[in-house]
Amino acid sequence: MKGGNFSGEGMKFVKECYPDLFNVIKDLDDEVNSGYVLDSKTLKLVSIAISASKCDARIIRKQIKSGIDNYGLTQDEIMDVLKVVLLSSGMPSFVQSAKILSEFYNGD
Amino acid sequence: MKGGNFSGEGMKFVKECYPDLFNVIKDLDDEVNSGYVLDSKTLKLVSIAISASKCDARIIRKQIKSGIDNYGLTQDEIMDVLKVVLLSSGMPSFVQSAKILSEFYNGD
Amino acid sequence: MKGGNFSGEGMKFVKECYPDLFNVIKDLDDEVNSGYVLDSKTLKLVSIAISASKCDARIIRKQIKSGIDNYGLTQDEIMDVLKVVLLSSGMPSFVQSAKILSEFYNGD
Amino acid sequence: MKGGNFSGEGMKFVKECYPDLFNVIKDLDDEVNSGYVLDSKTLKLVSIAISASKCDARIIRKQIKSGIDNYGLTQDEIMDVLKVVLLSSGMPSFVQSAKILSEFYNGD
Amino acid sequence: MKGGNFSGEGMKFVKECYPDLFNVIKDLDDEVNSGYVLDSKTLKLVSIAISASKCDARIIRKQIKSGIDNYGLTQDEIMDVLKVVLLSSGMPSFVQSAKILSEFYNGD
Amino acid sequence: MKGGNFSGEGMKFVKECYPDLFNVIKDLDDEVNSGYVLDSKTLKLVSIAISASKCDARIIRKQIKSGIDNYGLTQDEIMDVLKVVLLSSGMPSFVQSAKILSEFYNGD
Repeated sequence: MKGGNFSGEGMKFVKECYPDLFNVIKDLDDEVNSGYVLDSKTLKLVSIAISASKCDARIIRKQIKSGIDNYGLTQDEIMDVLKVVLLSSGMPSFVQSAKILSEFYNGD
Repeated sequence: MKGGNFSGEGMKFVKECYPDLFNVIKDLDDEVNSGYVLDSKTLKLVSIAISASKCDARIIRKQIKSGIDNYGLTQDEIMDVLKVVLLSSGMPSFVQSAKILSEFYNGD
Repeated sequence: MKGGNFSGEGMKFVKECYPDLFNVIKDLDDEVNSGYVLDSKTLKLVSIAISASKCDARIIRKQIKSGIDNYGLTQDEIMDVLKVVLLSSGMPSFVQSAKILSEFYNGD
Repeated sequence: MKGGNFSGEGMKFVKECYPDLFNVIKDLDDEVNSGYVLDSKTLKLVSIAISASKCDARIIRKQIKSGIDNYGLTQDEIMDVLKVVLLSSGMPSFVQSAKILSEFYNGD
Repeated sequence: MKGGNFSGEGMKFVKECYPDLFNVIKDLDDEVNSGYVLDSKTLKLVSIAISASKCDARIIRKQIKSGIDNYGLTQDEIMDVLKVVLLSSGMPSFVQSAKILSEFYNGD
Repeated sequence: MKGGNFSGEGMKFVKECYPDLFNVIKDLDDEVNSGYVLDSKTLKLVSIAISASKCDARIIRKQIKSGIDNYGLTQDEIMDVLKVVLLSSGMPSFVQSAKILSEFYNGD
């Protein structure tokens, strides 16, 4: 799964100061993202859903951005996932994620 | 999305005692599960992921069962999703869900 | 707020082995439950809501039981609160709590 | 329950782009907020409690603002609810919500 | 960190059916548990604290058991950690963990 | 445990407007932080771990700052704790906390 967790300041810091730790995280990330049967676009949708259900704006934004940039996810695909978030995690998680989604597409 | 939330005692109670509430929940569930673009099998995988990341055994079991019974999800498809849970929600969520998954397939 | 947190094995153990800790917790509980303006029945409804939104069956059962036994909460009052849980925390939390509620009232 | 979830950018986006989804959410919100027995001020206090226990600053602020603007909630009523949050969800949730509350009333 | 995550059915299943995944998890676990500066007993106390603050009984029990069996943690050491859980995550998490702790020591 | 929860606007507000509540919180905080057997530096590490596993940036920053200012915690000690967070709560919690940690030490 391209982009996402590895692009920010946090992992840059880990890479520089804790290279061994960085390497085992990298290996895990590679293993996770080489789906046995599912394609990586589906895995990305799953990642977005989990982030959205946890309600942390910064991480949701990063995951949605990575989904659009690296996998060409459309607004409707992401909204399909956010609807499941609505049902399983409630309105605040949904509303926050919908707002973030709208920033990327400006509603078009 | 067939099965899942509506099959247990909780919703039977809501249906009997609070029919209006039952109906609006039903409408929401229908809307959520008629994905705009994603198929309902993908939506089910997303549901499983969110449940697993929240670590509640009873709900994870129900979601996995519904995924197998109603959508024919395979062990590998579900494990692909659980790997994303491992990365985004940590070992305890993953280990618990892997254990529940193993109960359904007995490792075959 | 009568009942609830103090009735189980956990606090009995704390009281026996860690009396100083027990006392400061008791003081805090007393302070919390002497609402400045709200009555203790309303505070109990708030407690039930927070428990339900966290999805832990054992604690929800304890809180609902204490609400019924000590404050005479009715099924409809508790369901009113669970509806807010549905909206703010999603279906799994709601369905689980509705199931527990139904056990107390057997739907009558 | 007036205000709250429907006032922000997120729901405006949903209304414009996904009107069917908007309508079922609206129906659910109406159902939830027409308490069977509890008044809508009590339901609002419950909403604030759940938000506060989840620790998301943006949502807590929105809920408290809506409680003050639409229901005339007083500082003491909200603090009564936050005390229950302290007991059931710990200091960080409480301290954060107390800080947000203080911004509305400036301590008077 | 000996014991804990790897001892149950979940990881046995992963090892058998998904050996590559098992290996990267194992590497990560090894890396995490070879503290740069902290000893593994302290790391275990941290693990117990995180489990307890998440309120899942099964996992808390497993972590406390592993802390006692593999590191000789005493009741008082674990209670010191649970007191921090009380402050940062509230009564339900604390009471549940205290109850589990009491099962191991029978209050002596 | 010096610093942390009591230093911000939230508790200042509580102290001014709700002195009785402030006092019982203070007593609880004192009790929690006088570890029976563990030193207060270890307790601080536990506090940081719980904050980090909950993913709220503002609180993590406050806890790490207090750990450095009041207990002289080193980057490596905190990273040891964050590695346990990675294992038990997943990448987003870890990455966010690592980023905050890097702001304090600038990677040296």
